[in-house]
Amino acid sequence: MDSFADLGFARVDTSREARQGAPEAIVAEGKTPAEIRAIAQALLDAEASSVLVTRADAEARAALREVAPDAQEDERARLAWVARDVPEARGTVAIVSGGTSDLPVVREAQVRAELLGTNVVVHVDAGVAGLHRLEPALPDLKRADCVVVVAGWDAALASVVGGLVGAPVIAVPTSTGYGATFGGVSALLAMITSCAAGVAVVNIDDGFGAGTIAARIARQSA
Amino acid sequence: MDSFADLGFARVDTSREARQGAPEAIVAEGKTPAEIRAIAQALLDAEASSVLVTRADAEARAALREVAPDAQEDERARLAWVARDVPEARGTVAIVSGGTSDLPVVREAQVRAELLGTNVVVHVDAGVAGLHRLEPALPDLKRADCVVVVAGWDAALASVVGGLVGAPVIAVPTSTGYGATFGGVSALLAMITSCAAGVAVVNIDDGFGAGTIAARIARQSA
Amino acid sequence: MDSFADLGFARVDTSREARQGAPEAIVAEGKTPAEIRAIAQALLDAEASSVLVTRADAEARAALREVAPDAQEDERARLAWVARDVPEARGTVAIVSGGTSDLPVVREAQVRAELLGTNVVVHVDAGVAGLHRLEPALPDLKRADCVVVVAGWDAALASVVGGLVGAPVIAVPTSTGYGATFGGVSALLAMITSCAAGVAVVNIDDGFGAGTIAARIARQSA
Amino acid sequence: MDSFADLGFARVDTSREARQGAPEAIVAEGKTPAEIRAIAQALLDAEASSVLVTRADAEARAALREVAPDAQEDERARLAWVARDVPEARGTVAIVSGGTSDLPVVREAQVRAELLGTNVVVHVDAGVAGLHRLEPALPDLKRADCVVVVAGWDAALASVVGGLVGAPVIAVPTSTGYGATFGGVSALLAMITSCAAGVAVVNIDDGFGAGTIAARIARQSA
Amino acid sequence: MDSFADLGFARVDTSREARQGAPEAIVAEGKTPAEIRAIAQALLDAEASSVLVTRADAEARAALREVAPDAQEDERARLAWVARDVPEARGTVAIVSGGTSDLPVVREAQVRAELLGTNVVVHVDAGVAGLHRLEPALPDLKRADCVVVVAGWDAALASVVGGLVGAPVIAVPTSTGYGATFGGVSALLAMITSCAAGVAVVNIDDGFGAGTIAARIARQSA
Amino acid sequence: MDSFADLGFARVDTSREARQGAPEAIVAEGKTPAEIRAIAQALLDAEASSVLVTRADAEARAALREVAPDAQEDERARLAWVARDVPEARGTVAIVSGGTSDLPVVREAQVRAELLGTNVVVHVDAGVAGLHRLEPALPDLKRADCVVVVAGWDAALASVVGGLVGAPVIAVPTSTGYGATFGGVSALLAMITSCAAGVAVVNIDDGFGAGTIAARIARQSA
Amino acid sequence: MDSFADLGFARVDTSREARQGAPEAIVAEGKTPAEIRAIAQALLDAEASSVLVTRADAEARAALREVAPDAQEDERARLAWVARDVPEARGTVAIVSGGTSDLPVVREAQVRAELLGTNVVVHVDAGVAGLHRLEPALPDLKRADCVVVVAGWDAALASVVGGLVGAPVIAVPTSTGYGATFGGVSALLAMITSCAAGVAVVNIDDGFGAGTIAARIARQSA
Amino acid sequence: MDSFADLGFARVDTSREARQGAPEAIVAEGKTPAEIRAIAQALLDAEASSVLVTRADAEARAALREVAPDAQEDERARLAWVARDVPEARGTVAIVSGGTSDLPVVREAQVRAELLGTNVVVHVDAGVAGLHRLEPALPDLKRADCVVVVAGWDAALASVVGGLVGAPVIAVPTSTGYGATFGGVSALLAMITSCAAGVAVVNIDDGFGAGTIAARIARQSA
Ligand SMILES: Nc1ncnc2c1ncn2[C@@H]1O[C@H](COP(=O)(O)O)[C@@H](O)[C@H]1O
Ligand SMILES: Nc1ncnc2c1ncn2[C@@H]1O[C@H](COP(=O)(O)O)[C@@H](O)[C@H]1O
Ligand SMILES: Nc1ncnc2c1ncn2[C@@H]1O[C@H](COP(=O)(O)O)[C@@H](O)[C@H]1O
Ligand SMILES: Nc1ncnc2c1ncn2[C@@H]1O[C@H](COP(=O)(O)O)[C@@H](O)[C@H]1O
Ligand SMILES: [Mg+2]
Ligand SMILES: [Mg+2]
Ligand SMILES: [Mg+2]
Ligand SMILES: [Mg+2]
Ligand SMILES: [Mg+2]
Ligand SMILES: [Mg+2]
Ligand SMILES: [Mg+2]
Ligand SMILES: [Mg+2]
Repeated sequence: MDSFADLGFARVDTSREARQGAPEAIVAEGKTPAEIRAIAQALLDAEASSVLVTRADAEARAALREVAPDAQEDERARLAWVARDVPEARGTVAIVSGGTSDLPVVREAQVRAELLGTNVVVHVDAGVAGLHRLEPALPDLKRADCVVVVAGWDAALASVVGGLVGAPVIAVPTSTGYGATFGGVSALLAMITSCAAGVAVVNIDDGFGAGTIAARIARQSA
Repeated sequence: MDSFADLGFARVDTSREARQGAPEAIVAEGKTPAEIRAIAQALLDAEASSVLVTRADAEARAALREVAPDAQEDERARLAWVARDVPEARGTVAIVSGGTSDLPVVREAQVRAELLGTNVVVHVDAGVAGLHRLEPALPDLKRADCVVVVAGWDAALASVVGGLVGAPVIAVPTSTGYGATFGGVSALLAMITSCAAGVAVVNIDDGFGAGTIAARIARQSA
Repeated sequence: MDSFADLGFARVDTSREARQGAPEAIVAEGKTPAEIRAIAQALLDAEASSVLVTRADAEARAALREVAPDAQEDERARLAWVARDVPEARGTVAIVSGGTSDLPVVREAQVRAELLGTNVVVHVDAGVAGLHRLEPALPDLKRADCVVVVAGWDAALASVVGGLVGAPVIAVPTSTGYGATFGGVSALLAMITSCAAGVAVVNIDDGFGAGTIAARIARQSA
Repeated sequence: MDSFADLGFARVDTSREARQGAPEAIVAEGKTPAEIRAIAQALLDAEASSVLVTRADAEARAALREVAPDAQEDERARLAWVARDVPEARGTVAIVSGGTSDLPVVREAQVRAELLGTNVVVHVDAGVAGLHRLEPALPDLKRADCVVVVAGWDAALASVVGGLVGAPVIAVPTSTGYGATFGGVSALLAMITSCAAGVAVVNIDDGFGAGTIAARIARQSA
Repeated sequence: MDSFADLGFARVDTSREARQGAPEAIVAEGKTPAEIRAIAQALLDAEASSVLVTRADAEARAALREVAPDAQEDERARLAWVARDVPEARGTVAIVSGGTSDLPVVREAQVRAELLGTNVVVHVDAGVAGLHRLEPALPDLKRADCVVVVAGWDAALASVVGGLVGAPVIAVPTSTGYGATFGGVSALLAMITSCAAGVAVVNIDDGFGAGTIAARIARQSA
Repeated sequence: MDSFADLGFARVDTSREARQGAPEAIVAEGKTPAEIRAIAQALLDAEASSVLVTRADAEARAALREVAPDAQEDERARLAWVARDVPEARGTVAIVSGGTSDLPVVREAQVRAELLGTNVVVHVDAGVAGLHRLEPALPDLKRADCVVVVAGWDAALASVVGGLVGAPVIAVPTSTGYGATFGGVSALLAMITSCAAGVAVVNIDDGFGAGTIAARIARQSA
Repeated sequence: MDSFADLGFARVDTSREARQGAPEAIVAEGKTPAEIRAIAQALLDAEASSVLVTRADAEARAALREVAPDAQEDERARLAWVARDVPEARGTVAIVSGGTSDLPVVREAQVRAELLGTNVVVHVDAGVAGLHRLEPALPDLKRADCVVVVAGWDAALASVVGGLVGAPVIAVPTSTGYGATFGGVSALLAMITSCAAGVAVVNIDDGFGAGTIAARIARQSA
Repeated sequence: MDSFADLGFARVDTSREARQGAPEAIVAEGKTPAEIRAIAQALLDAEASSVLVTRADAEARAALREVAPDAQEDERARLAWVARDVPEARGTVAIVSGGTSDLPVVREAQVRAELLGTNVVVHVDAGVAGLHRLEPALPDLKRADCVVVVAGWDAALASVVGGLVGAPVIAVPTSTGYGATFGGVSALLAMITSCAAGVAVVNIDDGFGAGTIAARIARQSA
C-alpha cells in the first residue's frame, strides 16, 4: 500500500500524506536544484496537497518555481512552497516568539502549519526581558489548541508560557544569540528542562517540525 | 484569581489545576518527608484531583500515605500518588518502549496521564533491534490520539514510530544504557534530530512531563 | 602589609578582610577536621569578624565547634559558622528561589551575606511554573540594593526577575533537577545567556560567592 | 503602566528605562536595516535617554544615523549609539583587560556604562603573563565602585583582580584565542570557578551586559 | 622490508598495500597541489594499484590529473582517483543511505571499496521516516558480505538495518542536518549506542574508512 | 516468520538467531532477577544456541543458574552464560588489550565470540607505552580474520595495530583511566579518528558488540 | 634488547627504566591485590630502582607491603612505594599548589620525582585569591630547574607562575572544586590556554605524570 | 625592575626576556597592522633578541617588515619574525609530526625554538599509520634534549614516542582532520591521557608554546 517514487538519488515518500496526514517536504541544503525539481515534481505528480522546500537559497526556490509556477516564497525564512489541495483549516495554533530575530523560524512553523490545514495566529517579540509585552498575546495563547514558543538565548519564554496555558506547548529553540548560546544549545537545554510540565521540544531552528506536530494537535482537537 | 498556599519553604501552586487543567505534582528529591507531607496536604486541602509524588524513595512514599491513606505506590518507578477526583477518561494515549529497562519511565508517564483523565495503553520492549516486535503494537499506535515513545540507547524507535503514525508523537529519552549513552544524552539527541517530522521531546527520564502533555493532547482530541 | 598564617598545609589569608572587606572562608571538602580546626583557629586569632565553613559534613561542623563553642550550623545547607565581630548591617539583599529544593543554596548565600553585614530578605519557591507566586515578592525585590536569584532546572526565574527590577541581579544556578539539567549546567547556560541585561552569574550551587558579591553591592549602596 | 510600541515585527519595550533605569538596546544581528531604523525611532519617540546598537555592521550603523544624525559609532567594536538625555555621571567603573584583542568588548562595556550615566576608567592589556603591568592600574581598580575584568584565553586576570580589590567584580570572558579556548568557553569556565569570591560573570563577549550591571552598581554606590 | 618514499614534507608509505592490502590514500585538505602531485607520483612509482585523493577541491583534483591523465573524479564527493591495477572484484558490499544529502559520503565509500577490489551495490534515500522505502533494498542487504549504512540526523537507519541483516554492519555518521545534529555528532552517538549488536562505526563523513574496512570484510568473505 | 515471546514486560526476540545468526542476549542492569530468569527461560525454550547475561551482578548471575544449572560465570567481567548448541568454531578472532584493567571487556568480547562459534586468541597488556610487548602478539594478529583492540586512556594501540594488520579491526574503547579519559570518551574519540584506515569502533566497554561483529566477520571469512 | 615479564594478565615492561630512565609504575584501580603483588614482584625481580603504586586503597597498599616489607605509604594520596636503588638526586623541582585540597596530587608528584632521583621543594596553598602568599615561594620557584603548578578551580596560579619564572612549567589540573569545575576540566582548559608561554599540561590529578616529566627535566638540567 | 612600554592599546612587556629568558611575541589576530607595527617597534626599542608575529596574514607580516626590513616570513605557517640578537644555540630539540598537514605548526615551533637559541631537527609525516616511517627518526629523537610531537587526528604518535624516548616530551595537538577530530580536541584528549608517562601537552596548534618550553628545556639541559 505504501509507495514511493524512485528517482535513483531519492526515494520520494509519496504515501506519507496518506499514511500520516502530512506530505513529505524537501530540505534544500545538500541537494542540487535539479534534484529539488525532480523531487518536487514527483510529489506533485503524486498529488501532494502541498510541497514545501525549507533551507532554500535563491537557486533552490527557483527550482520549485520551475515545476510549480504558482509557488510562493519567503526569502528571509529561506522557504518556497506551493499550496495545491490544502485541507480546510481546522483548529488554531498560536505561535509566540521571544524576539524579532526568531522571525524566520516563526515563519517556517507558520507556513507548514497552514499548509497542513490549520489556523495560525502569531505574536512576535514578546520575550521575558519585558514580560508585559506578553500580556496582549495571552488571550490568543489561552484560546489556542496548541501553542508554539519560538525563542533563542535563555528561552525563558517557553517556561513562562508553559506555566500559563492549558494547551500543549511545543518549544522551538533558535540559534539567535552569541557566546554561550552555543547556536541554540542553551535554549534547547532550558526548554527541555523547563520547570513547567507539558512542554515538549523540537530541534534547534526547526520551525518545520514544530509546525507539523502543532498542526496535528490543532486539527485533531477542533 | 490565581492563588497559592504559602508554607514558607514552599509556595504550593493550588490554582495550577484550574489554570492549566493539571494539578501541581511533587518532585521528592531535595525535599524532606515533612515538606512532602505538608505540600501534599496543601494540595489535598485545595481539592486537587490527584497528588503525585515522583522520584520518591520509601520515606517519601510513606510521607504521602500519612496524609492520604488511600495513596498508591510503585516502588520500582519511585512513585506515590492518590487519586481523588480524577476526571472521567477522554481520549487515548499509547505508550511504547524500546526495552524492559524503560519500565519505570513508562509507568511514570502512564500514572500521570491516567490521573489527568485519559485512557492509556502500553507496549513494552518493542525496540528496533527486533522490529517485528513492534507490529502487534501498530494498531494501538495508529488508533491513539497521542503516542509516547520511551527509549534509551540510540532511541531509534522514536523515528520508526514517528514515520508510521499520524498522531502527535512525544518522545522520552531514558538513561538506560552505558558508555556513550551518556545517561540518556545520545537518546535525547537522536530523538530531537529525528528524521521523522512531528516528534517532540521531553527531558531524559521525564515520564511525568510526557504523561502531562500526552494527556492534554488526548483529552482535547477526544 | 598583606600577611598570612603559615600552617604548612595551608597559608591562611588573614589579611583578606582588611584588603577586601570579607574574611577568608573554609571549604570543608578535601580538608581533614584537624586542618579545618587549625585554619579556623588561625582566622579567629587574626580577629576575623566571622568564620564560615561551607560544604561541611557533621565532622567538619564539629571541628569548628571545637575551636568556637559559639558556632552555629545548618545541617541541610552543610554550613557551620561563628559570628564574632560582624559589621553593623547596611543595605538589603533580596534572595528569591525557584523551588524548595534550592533551599540549601539560598541559606548559604543568606548566611554569608549576613556575616558580611547586610540585611537579607528571602522568598523561596517562586518559580516560573506558577508565576503569580512571584508577585508577593516583587515589592521586596524592587526595594533591594541587590537581588540574588537561585534556581535550577531551566532557571527562567533569573530572566523574569532580571526584566522587572532595577537593582543588579546575581544569579546562582543550582544542581537541582535531573536528566538534561546536567547538574546545573543548563541553569548556568540559561542564566549567562539571559535576555535580560544586568544579570551576572556565579558558579553552580555557589551561594557563598553570591552572598559575597551581593553583600558588597548592598553595603556600598546603602 | 508598562508599555511598548508594537511594530508588528517587534514590541519595543519603551518602558524599560522607567522600570529598570536602563533603556532597551538593539542587537543588530538578525535584524534588517529597516527594522533597526524603526526600533531606534520608536525608542527615540519614547524619549529614551540613549539608543545603542550592538553587533552592528556598516549597514546597521548607517541605519541608526538615518534616524539620528547625531549618532556616533565605533567600527571595530561594531557599535553605533546616540546619546540624548544621558543622566549625569555618578560613581566610577574601572575596566581592565588582559590583552589588546579584548578592545572591542572593552569599548562595548565602556559605551554602555557611560550612556547609563557613570564614569569609566579603562586599562587595556594588563594580563597575567606580565603581572607587573597590572600595578599602575591598581589604584584605579581599588578606588572604583565596580571593576569589570575583560579577558580571553585562561582569563586568569579575573581571579587576580578578584583577590585584590574590595569592590564587586564583573568578569567578561572574551572569544580571543584559538584552539582550546573554544570561543571563550575556557575563559568563561575559569571566571565562573574563580577561586576569588565576589566575582560574577556575564556572557562571552558581552560588554553590553557588563556595562549595564556595572553602571547600576556604580551609580547606586555613589 | 617496509619502505617509504621520503619527500621531505611527506614520508609516503609505499609498502602499505603490501603490508595491509590497501594502498595509502591522500587527504587533500592541508596539502598544496604540488605536494599532492608529488605524493601521488611516489605512489604510482611504487606501483600502487590505485591512488585516491579525498576532500579534494578542483585544484587538488587537477593535481592528480597532471601526474595521471587517466584520473577520474567526482566533484560533489570531492574525489579524484586513478585505477591502475585494481584487484579482481571479490565479495559484495551493500551501501544504503538515509537521505539524498548523504550521497557524497556514499560515493566516497563506493569508490574506495571498488578500488580495493570488491563489488558494490548502492541504495540511496531509504531512511526511517518512510521505512517502506527500505524494503526493496533488503534482498541486497541480506545477500551482501558487508553492509555500510550512511546516515545523518538521528541515524536510526543503522539500528534498523542492524536488526535485520546477518552480515557485519559498518555505520557512517554524516554531517547532514542542522541544529542539534552538531555536524554529525548525534548520528555518531546514535550509531555507537545502537541497540542492534554487530554494528561498528567510523568517523563522521568517513566514507573512505568505511569503504576500506567493508572491502576487507567482503573480499575475505568471498 | 519472525517471532517473539511476549512476557508482558519483555518481548523476547526468539527469531533473532535465525534472522541474524546470533541469539538475543540479556543486559542485566535495569532488570529484576525474576525478569532475567523469565527471559533466559524463553530463549532456552526457543532453543537458543546460547544465552549470555552481561553487566550481571551476583543476583543476576544466580538468576541464570536457576533456569540453567549448566551456566558458567565470570565475576570480574560480570558475565553469566550457558552454552547449549554453540556452532562449530570457524575462523579466528584475535583480541589484544592495552592494559590489565581492560580484562573484563576482553573477556566479554571473548565469551560472546566463542558462543557464536569462532576461535579466539587473546593478548592482554600490550599497550603502546611499551610497544615491544606487542611484538609477540603480531603473528597472531596478522593471522586472524578479525582483530579486536581493547584499550582505554589514549587508545593509541588501535591505531598502531590498525597500521600493521590487513584484517578488519574492531576497536573497543574502555572506561579505564581517570581525569580527562572521561569514562572512555577520549579513547572512543581517538579510535574513531584513527589515522589508520580500516578501523571501526563500538561503544565504550562494549565487549559484547565487538564479540558479535568480530565473530560474524571471522566466521564468514573462514 | 627490550624485554618484559609475561604474567598472562600483564606484560610487565621491565626494560622501561633502561629505555627511558624511569621504571614502570602500577595504577592500582582496576587490578586485584594479587595482580598488584605479582606485577610489583616482577618489577623488583627485574631490579627496578623503585616501585610505585598509585590510586591505591588500603588493600592495594597492603599488596605492595607483602612483596616489599620496606614499602612506605601515604593514605591520603593513595600511594604505596618502595625505594630500592633510587639514583642520587640531581637538580631541583619546585612544586606549588593553589590550595590545601590539592595535597594528594602534590604528594604524588613529589614521591614520583624523588624516586626518580631529584630534589623536591614544596609550597602548598599559594593560590591567586591571596597572591601575597606566593611571594615567599618565589625564590624557590625561580631557582628550580622545573616548576610544577598544581591547581584546581580556575587554575589561575599556573598562568601567574608561568609569567614569573624562567624554568619550564608543568601544570597539573586537579579535580578540587564543585559545580562548573567539572572535575578538573575547567582547570585543564585554563592551564592549556594559559596566556603565559612555556606552560605544558598533564592529565587531571596526574601528579605521577608531572613528577615523571619534571624529574627528567630537572635531572638533565643539573 | 620589571618594566613595560605603555602604548595605550597595549602594555608591551619589555622585561619579559630579562625575567624569563624569552621575549614577548605578538599574536596578530585581533590586532590592526598599526598596532602590530607599534608593538614590534617597542620590543625592538627595548632590544628584544627577536620579534615573532604569529597567526599573521599578509598585512600583519608586512607590518613587521615596515619596522624591521630584515624580517623573514613563512606564509603557510602565517609567521613573520626578525632575529636580532639570538642567543648562541645550546641543546637540541627534535620535532616530529604525524602528517604533512601538521607542517605549519611544526614550523611555528621550530622558528620559536631557534629564535630562543637552540638547535632544532625536524621529522615530518612519521605517523602511526605507517610506523616504520618513525624508525629513521628514532636516533634523533633519542639524542634530543626535548622531543616535540605534533599530531592531529588520534595523535597516537605522542604515546608511541612517549614510550620510546627518555627525554621530556612536549605534545602539540593539531586541528588537522575532520568529523570527530573536533578541531584538535580528540588529539588533545588523547595526548593528555597518554599511557606513556612524561608527556605534557600545550594548546591545539600551539607551536609557539611548544617551541618556548622545548627551547627552555633544551638550553638548560645542554
Ligand atoms: N518527575 C518530574 N519531572 C519533572 N517535573 C516534575 C516531576 N514531578 C513533578 N514535577 C513538576 O515539578 C514541579 C515541582 O517543583 P518543586 O517546586 O521543586 O516541587 C511541579 O510544578 C511539577 O509540575
Ligand atoms: N601562537 C601563539 N600561541 C599562543 N600564545 C602566543 C602565540 N604567539 C604569541 N603568544 C603569546 O601571547 C601573548 C600575546 O597576547 P596579546 O597581548 O594578545 O598580544 C604574548 O605574551 C605571547 O607570549
Ligand atoms: N577521506 C579520508 N578520511 C580519512 N582518512 C583518509 C581519507 N583519505 C585518506 N585517508 C588516510 O589518511 C592518510 C593520509 O594522511 P596524510 O599523511 O595527512 O596524507 C592516509 O594514510 C589515508 O589512508
Ligand atoms: N526544515 C526541516 N527540518 C527538519 N526536517 C525537515 C525540514 N524540512 C523537511 N524536513 C523533513 O526532512 C525529510 C527530508 O529528508 P531528505 O531525504 O534529505 O530530503 C523529509 O522527510 C521532511 O519531512
Ligand atoms: Mg526584542
Ligand atoms: Mg528488550
Ligand atoms: Mg515548587
Ligand atoms: Mg598583550
Ligand atoms: Mg529523503
Ligand atoms: Mg599494563
Ligand atoms: Mg587555601
Ligand atoms: Mg601522511
